[in-house]
Amino acid sequence: MNMSFLQELFSGITRRDALQRRFGTRKTNYDHTDLEAACHELLYSDGEAASIVMASRALDIYQSLGDDDKRAFFRALGSNFAADPDKIDEAYRIYRGDRSNKHLAGLFEVCEPLRQELFRRLNLAQGATYELVKMRQDFLALMKGHKDFEPINADFEHLFGSWFNRGFLMLRRIDWATPASILEKIIRYEAVHKIQGWDDLRRRLDNRDRRCFAFFHPAIGDEPLIFVEVALTKGIPDKIQPILAHDRYDIDAPELADSAAFFGISNCQVGLRGISFGNFLIKQVVQELKQELPNLKNFVTLSPLPMFRNWLEQISHPDSGQLTPEARSVLGHLDNPEWARHPELAERLNEVIRPLAARYLLKEKSGDNLPLNPVARFHLGNGAELHRINWLGDVSENGMKQSAGLMVNYLYVLENIERNHEKFTTNGEIVCSPSVRELSKLGRKLLQGEPEK
Amino acid sequence: MNMSFLQELFSGITRRDALQRRFGTRKTNYDHTDLEAACHELLYSDGEAASIVMASRALDIYQSLGDDDKRAFFRALGSNFAADPDKIDEAYRIYRGDRSNKHLAGLFEVCEPLRQELFRRLNLAQGATYELVKMRQDFLALMKGHKDFEPINADFEHLFGSWFNRGFLMLRRIDWATPASILEKIIRYEAVHKIQGWDDLRRRLDNRDRRCFAFFHPAIGDEPLIFVEVALTKGIPDKIQPILAHDRYDIDAPELADSAAFFGISNCQVGLRGISFGNFLIKQVVQELKQELPNLKNFVTLSPLPMFRNWLEQISHPDSGQLTPEARSVLGHLDNPEWARHPELAERLNEVIRPLAARYLLKEKSGDNLPLNPVARFHLGNGAELHRINWLGDVSENGMKQSAGLMVNYLYVLENIERNHEKFTTNGEIVCSPSVRELSKLGRKLLQGEPEK
Amino acid sequence: MNMSFLQELFSGITRRDALQRRFGTRKTNYDHTDLEAACHELLYSDGEAASIVMASRALDIYQSLGDDDKRAFFRALGSNFAADPDKIDEAYRIYRGDRSNKHLAGLFEVCEPLRQELFRRLNLAQGATYELVKMRQDFLALMKGHKDFEPINADFEHLFGSWFNRGFLMLRRIDWATPASILEKIIRYEAVHKIQGWDDLRRRLDNRDRRCFAFFHPAIGDEPLIFVEVALTKGIPDKIQPILAHDRYDIDAPELADSAAFFGISNCQVGLRGISFGNFLIKQVVQELKQELPNLKNFVTLSPLPMFRNWLEQISHPDSGQLTPEARSVLGHLDNPEWARHPELAERLNEVIRPLAARYLLKEKSGDNLPLNPVARFHLGNGAELHRINWLGDVSENGMKQSAGLMVNYLYVLENIERNHEKFTTNGEIVCSPSVRELSKLGRKLLQGEPEK
Amino acid sequence: MNMSFLQELFSGITRRDALQRRFGTRKTNYDHTDLEAACHELLYSDGEAASIVMASRALDIYQSLGDDDKRAFFRALGSNFAADPDKIDEAYRIYRGDRSNKHLAGLFEVCEPLRQELFRRLNLAQGATYELVKMRQDFLALMKGHKDFEPINADFEHLFGSWFNRGFLMLRRIDWATPASILEKIIRYEAVHKIQGWDDLRRRLDNRDRRCFAFFHPAIGDEPLIFVEVALTKGIPDKIQPILAHDRYDIDAPELADSAAFFGISNCQVGLRGISFGNFLIKQVVQELKQELPNLKNFVTLSPLPMFRNWLEQISHPDSGQLTPEARSVLGHLDNPEWARHPELAERLNEVIRPLAARYLLKEKSGDNLPLNPVARFHLGNGAELHRINWLGDVSENGMKQSAGLMVNYLYVLENIERNHEKFTTNGEIVCSPSVRELSKLGRKLLQGEPEK
Repeated sequence: MNMSFLQELFSGITRRDALQRRFGTRKTNYDHTDLEAACHELLYSDGEAASIVMASRALDIYQSLGDDDKRAFFRALGSNFAADPDKIDEAYRIYRGDRSNKHLAGLFEVCEPLRQELFRRLNLAQGATYELVKMRQDFLALMKGHKDFEPINADFEHLFGSWFNRGFLMLRRIDWATPASILEKIIRYEAVHKIQGWDDLRRRLDNRDRRCFAFFHPAIGDEPLIFVEVALTKGIPDKIQPILAHDRYDIDAPELADSAAFFGISNCQVGLRGISFGNFLIKQVVQELKQELPNLKNFVTLSPLPMFRNWLEQISHPDSGQLTPEARSVLGHLDNPEWARHPELAERLNEVIRPLAARYLLKEKSGDNLPLNPVARFHLGNGAELHRINWLGDVSENGMKQSAGLMVNYLYVLENIERNHEKFTTNGEIVCSPSVRELSKLGRKLLQGEPEK
Repeated sequence: MNMSFLQELFSGITRRDALQRRFGTRKTNYDHTDLEAACHELLYSDGEAASIVMASRALDIYQSLGDDDKRAFFRALGSNFAADPDKIDEAYRIYRGDRSNKHLAGLFEVCEPLRQELFRRLNLAQGATYELVKMRQDFLALMKGHKDFEPINADFEHLFGSWFNRGFLMLRRIDWATPASILEKIIRYEAVHKIQGWDDLRRRLDNRDRRCFAFFHPAIGDEPLIFVEVALTKGIPDKIQPILAHDRYDIDAPELADSAAFFGISNCQVGLRGISFGNFLIKQVVQELKQELPNLKNFVTLSPLPMFRNWLEQISHPDSGQLTPEARSVLGHLDNPEWARHPELAERLNEVIRPLAARYLLKEKSGDNLPLNPVARFHLGNGAELHRINWLGDVSENGMKQSAGLMVNYLYVLENIERNHEKFTTNGEIVCSPSVRELSKLGRKLLQGEPEK
Repeated sequence: MNMSFLQELFSGITRRDALQRRFGTRKTNYDHTDLEAACHELLYSDGEAASIVMASRALDIYQSLGDDDKRAFFRALGSNFAADPDKIDEAYRIYRGDRSNKHLAGLFEVCEPLRQELFRRLNLAQGATYELVKMRQDFLALMKGHKDFEPINADFEHLFGSWFNRGFLMLRRIDWATPASILEKIIRYEAVHKIQGWDDLRRRLDNRDRRCFAFFHPAIGDEPLIFVEVALTKGIPDKIQPILAHDRYDIDAPELADSAAFFGISNCQVGLRGISFGNFLIKQVVQELKQELPNLKNFVTLSPLPMFRNWLEQISHPDSGQLTPEARSVLGHLDNPEWARHPELAERLNEVIRPLAARYLLKEKSGDNLPLNPVARFHLGNGAELHRINWLGDVSENGMKQSAGLMVNYLYVLENIERNHEKFTTNGEIVCSPSVRELSKLGRKLLQGEPEK
Repeated sequence: MNMSFLQELFSGITRRDALQRRFGTRKTNYDHTDLEAACHELLYSDGEAASIVMASRALDIYQSLGDDDKRAFFRALGSNFAADPDKIDEAYRIYRGDRSNKHLAGLFEVCEPLRQELFRRLNLAQGATYELVKMRQDFLALMKGHKDFEPINADFEHLFGSWFNRGFLMLRRIDWATPASILEKIIRYEAVHKIQGWDDLRRRLDNRDRRCFAFFHPAIGDEPLIFVEVALTKGIPDKIQPILAHDRYDIDAPELADSAAFFGISNCQVGLRGISFGNFLIKQVVQELKQELPNLKNFVTLSPLPMFRNWLEQISHPDSGQLTPEARSVLGHLDNPEWARHPELAERLNEVIRPLAARYLLKEKSGDNLPLNPVARFHLGNGAELHRINWLGDVSENGMKQSAGLMVNYLYVLENIERNHEKFTTNGEIVCSPSVRELSKLGRKLLQGEPEK
């Protein structure tokens, strides 16, 4: 064993170079068996300084693997890094005899899948946290449908839940004075209304009436976890295009705004799916904005209605028989790509689509009795209220295709958040404004065969 | 339920004030049952934003409790926040039938003591991480000897191991430009050679030949976890008093030093006992120093020998019969508090004490076949070598009382660290210099009845 | 000429070492002729990179000189670094012939004393700005009364006025998170109410109802120029001892304070005497405090009355005949060091001293028709109002000796500052409260022979 | 007079708003007489806090003026803000009688053009330093050729020389972690090889073998003064296109580079023309690079040869008779825009152009006996050596048009810088490599009628 490795590691040469010197330059084509061996070596070490080296090595091997070897490694996580059934049987036998905390601890210890300890030890390496997040991203993509997908995924979530505890997250304002290395990631990760490049980005960040905030994690450095874009407006905005326009004027002074409109919330890390930040983010941003601008009265989203067009197509299918014939006939005009340019036609569509959207949001539920629409589910679950459904709120190609041009305002009324949240989670009740309720009633009439309530 | 609480929380009033308004001002004398109720409420929440409020409340109640109520709460952690035996039985039954990862995950989940989830949720509150560290400090003090001490302690360790993962720690240099709020903690926490106030601190930090480094955790802010004090010297130092002297001259330029002597390593957080940082700290500091001062050749400690005097007393007890009569007679002079001032007497003691110290370090082991002496155990376990035993190395009152005035150099030879560590952990082998080996041979002769080896 | 000097300079060895290598180790005892030679060399260089070296060298020589050589150097600044009379004659002749800007520029250039260009070039060296400030400190101490004192002093002031332009100053809050290296200077420089060490400092900085701000200059780093200590109070305070007390309670929350009392303003750099910062400092601090604490209503000082006791002694001298016999007799009790402890005696003194103090502040003027008292002159010149004269406001030994125990509140009423300032500078008018006006009337009666007004 | 102005200023509303309230909203179309009045008001104030308001106002009026009014104001600087001839006459009379420092100071004071004091007082306003830099930029553009251009320009330079003293400049590395607000200025100000947008910028900053450094001034914030782009290379590069290429590979590790090539130095502020930073910048960057990368051996430029094509045209004009007919005939091919694509033709041009370039650099001087070529003048004046003239070093359109495709390496040999600088400034001597000397000899033969030397 070449003993100069740790010395090299600590004398500043890069990990990759040090590894190369230690393990030789010939072997560059690792496969999953090398990785498994490295992981076992790491698990049987004592968790101290030498383990850093082994953790680094294992992560480097992982990164060099192709998809097939990664898949094989993930499968091995299920088979070779689970738990020892004999030890479990023995620990359970003892626990059953004396159900003390001591024996519970013994049982818990042997039940913990070995891969959890493996992930914790891999996390000893420099920069490992982010590499593990990317490992899970691979896992989600490569193992979908595999029989061990759920339990291994649960192990990732279990640890990430600890590491990305809300108490460890740091909120930072993103603006034009932010390092370019972060800004380029904002451009890349914006998922709702695509940023068209640096000039577009600047418009979104560097005006007096724009704000952007992101969560970061101290062990991950400059990689944002999630961010939100905010427009400061007079009145609650009902359309996204004026907000994104190239040639718009900003308001004279942010102090004049009475509303903060959250018009884009983007998760940045696929590998952190299921670890929820959005809820905390919105509420912490509200707090920041209130402190900076005490005049703000409304905290509201301007949100898309993804999948709504799909749902419209389903219900207007001749076989479904759900819609009144008149409504179905009107909806047929949606196939005309020019409909929005014909005022009369648009008006007729408006009279059908917004009522149906209200119905869709309030009544279409998943098996868990929560809204089918994922955006509604998120904001209503956070305690927001369904405030307004805006006609021709997003006339971009994507907006027309996904949401039939609609945009939705969800309103965060601070003193109602807790109560709304409770109603929603307890019995699926959705708090909405009278205007939406009115629309929903109209919508009911457009849907044939729906029983009186 | 008063719904303005979250609003208050997010509008910037302090947690304590908000809580007071919510839960009324009358109830200020909480007891452990209030805390348990608050913890249950937290556990049955959905882990989202509202939970932050509940976590804050529970921590505030905890802080207001006296020792008796805290003790009652810790006992409840054992009884009411353990796991559900019926669920365990059921999950085990299923797992025994099909030992898949899915059912392992099911079993693992129900085996996890509820208090682990409780700690994770408490950690949602602002500043909670540090408050949980202090909670464990209370736990260690109040529950010693309780039947559930070990398992609950293991739950703390399990989570702290995740949260204080080495990858999350930040090394910072401590010097005279460090905020006073941190420096006062350095004064308070220095455990090896007490710092006598700000002037003494300045001498230790603000000279060209002194360095100090500490680990911090991002969620804990300005509270150091552990720190190390370093003297840059020409040659390996053998005495601590010249290093701490008020009137010493520092070396002309740090570039002229060939040795970095670690003369004090202090853990700051009792509540983090058992979560090891020292090993990582020393090695990362070595790395920093090498980068700053490429001329450094020796990385070495100047360490005390705690408990050595105790051991000497044991072996020199007439009944023990371990020492030669001559040696015992010489050691009797240790009772003369003035012995160090009589050169001839000191010389006779030297001839007995240093050989016995070598013997003590190399041969006196615990049940785990590792050295009895905790400092030796730590540095040798890190891969250091036992380099030198220094006569009259610490003539302070404490140094005489604990270590009979001896100080020890443990040497970190980078290219040997891994190998030394391995030898030590595998079969308890201690790497030492020829001079120490020689002393040990002399020591053997002073110990009667020891078998030839 | 050894050409490796610049190389050494730029390769990171210290200036002192580089200079030593260049100019040899033998010559360490420089005298003023060496310094003058180095200054001439610098002046005849072309002001580019090589000049940095020469400037460094000249400053190093200066620092090594004793007082006699420094004095000789300052004298040489007058004789050898003035201007060339022949060139002035010639330039004036030309200017007289054609009073164009071109010829004015020519005349201006040759009239500028050479030492101004010398100071500018010395300022090229690393850290030179602060060393020039200390050079002026020496100058003020060593050259007092010399015939060239005023003109050379004017040259320093001319340049320092440019370099320490208000636009270059940075306001920083000083608190317990400030680096110790700055805090120890705050302890050292506090001139009004001596800070007794780190614990006392902490009391002044680290309470919710205390603030401290200082101006820094970017080229001088961590050396404060001036700082102000502020107490947040309910009501305008009239006594300093409760503010400095060890065992006081702070107010519950800074938001509850309605007054900010400036109780100590200390200039830190003797060498910057005459370059005024205090005015800007107070107004910028007012701005900061208003932003942080909108509830603040009064911005006020709690100021000493230095030299007042002196003035009392003068007017109560039997020969002066200024005081009524009764008043003189009462003032005689001031010689009793215990007077403050005898309530009746104190009351009689109160009836004489406060009226006289009001008179002293309002009527005793220098030749420039501005108040004799330097503190009054400063705050009234800033546009403050004379608000209140407080009996037994400072009962420390120094307070009794200097100010007969009085303290004065000067009030900064933002909307009146400009107007007050104008009245004061235009015709010496002092704005004061009715109560002070009343006192002053009483004071008039105590002063014999004063004409009716 | 509305007295609430200062209050408004200090209570956080913007300067512009405060001014508007004070001076009324009706007057928005200021002209130069308003500005002159505001400047006089400022000059007759006492230079304390109220002056900040007046300085702000004057700068705001200035910014609102059109070019004609600005021009009128600049003319007024010459006529109404000069000096008082009577006072000068009187001060000179006194000085002539007694040539003491006191009277010199008196004369100096009245000779200083009033506009210098005006500029100093304008500099009291927030952000004024940068606004004065932009004022000079206007001045340079608008007053070129005016009779008072030189003296007023000298006043600007005099003050800027003090304010932008090298000791006040801060060197900062520019890389991909630099705020976008600074990076966009780098894109805008790059003057040598235009940056094509953010992607191009990233290539120049964010590779392991690229560096960029800029000088900043503390009172000007994020506005760079000058910056330099550096390529780390193996060997001294002779062509710019490979350095700027989109698809190039960077070197494996910066540690492998032996050369640092400065390939672009851009001044950012027209208004600071004549205030030299470039020299200090290069030398400080050399220092930084040596510290980071001790392996670097060559510090060298890759510089254009602006105006060279012009010079070629002059000497090849038939009337000039300077060139041999053969050379003239060869140079004629430069008119063929395709010449670089014909290897044989290019080779013949090479044999004429490089020798002539060497001649041009070494022998073509201005009236001050320094090189005609501005880039050569700058680097040789800094102490660099003329190292190499590179054929087809810059084949961009601009490079062909300006420099006939040549690029020049100037070498900074640290141990020779001072000596080279001295030779150059003393007697115009240029240090060059043997290869350039050889080329120059060839060049001499191509120039008819040049006398033997």
